Amino acid sequence: MLNPADDLFIAELAAHLPAGTLRPPEPRHLEEPRGHWQGGGGVLALPRCTGEVATIVGHCAAGRVPVVPRGGGTGLVGGQVCPDGPAPVILSLERMDAVRAVHAAENTIVVEAGMTLAAVREAAADAGRRFPLSLASEGSARIGGCLATNAGGINVLRWGNARDLCLGVEAVMADGRVLGGLKRLRKDNTGYDLRNLLIGSEGTLGIITAAALRLVAPPASEGTALLAVPDPGAALGLLALAETRAAGCVSAFELIAGGAFGLLAETVPEARRLLEPVPDWAVLVELGLPAGLDAGTALEELYSEAAAAGLAGDGVIARSEGQRAELWRMRELLPEASRRVGAVSNHDIALPLGALPAFLDEVDAAIARIGPFRLAPFGHLGDGNLHYNVFPPKGGRRSDYPEDMRAEIKRTVHDIVHAMGGSISAEHGIGRFKVDDLERYGDPVKLSAMRAIKAALDPHGIMNPGAVLRPGG
Amino acid sequence: MLNPADDLFIAELAAHLPAGTLRPPEPRHLEEPRGHWQGGGGVLALPRCTGEVATIVGHCAAGRVPVVPRGGGTGLVGGQVCPDGPAPVILSLERMDAVRAVHAAENTIVVEAGMTLAAVREAAADAGRRFPLSLASEGSARIGGCLATNAGGINVLRWGNARDLCLGVEAVMADGRVLGGLKRLRKDNTGYDLRNLLIGSEGTLGIITAAALRLVAPPASEGTALLAVPDPGAALGLLALAETRAAGCVSAFELIAGGAFGLLAETVPEARRLLEPVPDWAVLVELGLPAGLDAGTALEELYSEAAAAGLAGDGVIARSEGQRAELWRMRELLPEASRRVGAVSNHDIALPLGALPAFLDEVDAAIARIGPFRLAPFGHLGDGNLHYNVFPPKGGRRSDYPEDMRAEIKRTVHDIVHAMGGSISAEHGIGRFKVDDLERYGDPVKLSAMRAIKAALDPHGIMNPGAVLRPGG
Repeated sequence: MLNPADDLFIAELAAHLPAGTLRPPEPRHLEEPRGHWQGGGGVLALPRCTGEVATIVGHCAAGRVPVVPRGGGTGLVGGQVCPDGPAPVILSLERMDAVRAVHAAENTIVVEAGMTLAAVREAAADAGRRFPLSLASEGSARIGGCLATNAGGINVLRWGNARDLCLGVEAVMADGRVLGGLKRLRKDNTGYDLRNLLIGSEGTLGIITAAALRLVAPPASEGTALLAVPDPGAALGLLALAETRAAGCVSAFELIAGGAFGLLAETVPEARRLLEPVPDWAVLVELGLPAGLDAGTALEELYSEAAAAGLAGDGVIARSEGQRAELWRMRELLPEASRRVGAVSNHDIALPLGALPAFLDEVDAAIARIGPFRLAPFGHLGDGNLHYNVFPPKGGRRSDYPEDMRAEIKRTVHDIVHAMGGSISAEHGIGRFKVDDLERYGDPVKLSAMRAIKAALDPHGIMNPGAVLRPGG
Repeated sequence: MLNPADDLFIAELAAHLPAGTLRPPEPRHLEEPRGHWQGGGGVLALPRCTGEVATIVGHCAAGRVPVVPRGGGTGLVGGQVCPDGPAPVILSLERMDAVRAVHAAENTIVVEAGMTLAAVREAAADAGRRFPLSLASEGSARIGGCLATNAGGINVLRWGNARDLCLGVEAVMADGRVLGGLKRLRKDNTGYDLRNLLIGSEGTLGIITAAALRLVAPPASEGTALLAVPDPGAALGLLALAETRAAGCVSAFELIAGGAFGLLAETVPEARRLLEPVPDWAVLVELGLPAGLDAGTALEELYSEAAAAGLAGDGVIARSEGQRAELWRMRELLPEASRRVGAVSNHDIALPLGALPAFLDEVDAAIARIGPFRLAPFGHLGDGNLHYNVFPPKGGRRSDYPEDMRAEIKRTVHDIVHAMGGSISAEHGIGRFKVDDLERYGDPVKLSAMRAIKAALDPHGIMNPGAVLRPGG
């Protein structure tokens, strides 16, 4: 059983920390972005260093007090708010936001967990390198949270998820001890892969306090195009063509349904129409090429070959950095447009690439049988990852739909995803919103191994209780 | 306590398996390649399918009988032989060598664990794709073992280790249950990363029976060059130049010391001298480029720029596939040459790239203080991974050196590696030969977390006992 962070506990812990480390949480520490849940109070801890994190977690372990770690709070599955159970220590890493070291020549950087992703990217750029993890929320998301949730984003196709960009982590484990794993090594086969176990565990096994990250050399030439495609199958054909031509230099390959352009036009009137008429489907493709090639020319050649093969129709190839930024701005506004319209149900799903066209056919038909919804999928096609969101018809509102209908939609989508070998959480994680889904769709042997690992590494269940796994489950 | 696979146990297990599944082990099932250890007997199990693996492991769990999984047996740290303790079931996956499915358009392949790495590479090539894991022992090494040990090799710089090329695994856990994790997904954030926990655990947590692997599109143009460099610092400068010019398209970047060329000339007289005079240091660099570029031309430009900057001297750029093969053949013969000469002590180490020149200065001097040894390092410089082997002077033999001097050399090398933030096992793993080293150099919090995970997932300690962790430790 867990105990609340009550006055006595807070006073005792405060005596071991610099003044001002503990304070009442502000509203921003109790919210999650979609407004579904608010946290239930507790005390906010703002440590300045790993030693203070260790002190806090050590006391929580001794007192059986829950710890809810918090990065930028941008997660979409409720991993950052704990409305149930005894009042927790909300442990925000926001003050631990320093670069510990940049090693530009070896393409590594060592950062504290509280740096925003944008700040990490800037620090890399200042050293003439790139940290290729990129998300719409990168100005607020903190790197520790990105790692804890194994964040994805737009460049996974080429450079991988957060885990693929992390060489080593320092973390405070559930007993308050510090795991020293900040190695800057590409190869290190010395025992079990605790780094990858912590990455993606959403703060339920330990708290990442610092990380050694991979950087890459920026491509010599980069270019972006928005190409209309007849259907998702053609989009996949175009992806295969791009991969073959560019040999691993496709940095991003995003799919956008015509309906998503429609949401954008409705909610962000200043967003320029880039393709007229609005296509049924389009892809945003980015190449990052070696010296000796011009990405604009390479995109033109790709476009010609694709058009000749019937894989692309209308198209826009950016002619300047400004035009590239405009294409990406459109893409980045899609989640905001979705939020403004208000989906009846959101689904962050992944499918084996080859299964995507059949999936879309099947799921669209299944949703139509439930009601006259608007579908506006978009996402990271190169990774098989779509944000398949279901919207009310024009003029309708999310609140028009009862909870049971929303649940039916979600179940319908997830059942089809699962049957086709896909994932019901491609990049957002499980948090607290998808615990039921994980229990429903997760491999039972995986779930029992997860529970055994949780019990082994956090025997009192203090670390982010209720996230990923049901407490006591 | 564990029990031996005695006649009674074997008879009972045999009743649940097709005839011929259990048999006495052949000598090849009891050996490891460097001849340090021979296994102590036991019974050989040759399952044909995952269900039979589950049956075998389930009976071993019930009977507390050790299981030693075996791939191609090419590992260099004794993970595949168990000379101590009760006679084990040696579980060889060699009969499970089928391709389950090839999905060329989505760049994935699903294979059984017993396929050799070479066979996986061939199956990928037959589909017009490439499986980029490549090792000298790929003709014998099996993919299950490559994953269990997180094998590395020559293309890690660009495509990562075995773990980076694996999308999902099916595995039999220590209780005999089957973990169904064969997803072909780039993004799947549904709970703890058991895939990466199993990868690199060397058969101590479960037995990988099949894997979904990533394939890549072959580069449009590939080229290879052997360039003399003045010193390791210049080699790193050349690497940075290559990475900047080729923007992530450097497929391999190997360092070879002059002494290694010397070993080759002594032991493989038919090996042609490629650079004359033999340089103090050389790098083997390979580019794999998109359509529109010629790798030979790109290497010439790289070479000119490097030479102008004082980073390269003499050089050979391959003009044909035959010449490329000859350069790689030379590289692949280096481990064989090392074996023929017979190192007093072998070290598979990794350093942060920036620390490598200082490491070589310091370790060379420290070894010279122990005695007049020959040093002939070579390895995967792009990954910071060197095979830093110490040889007797010309005419001397490994057996001339007492065990305590060999231990002193090993300790000296590993102490310096550790002090500089490196790894004492970059790509070979821990097996049984490096358990002491892991205990000495491993982070204590990591070690206790590893022991907790081992106890949680394999409570009776039947899985490859004595590998990675000391039994009961």
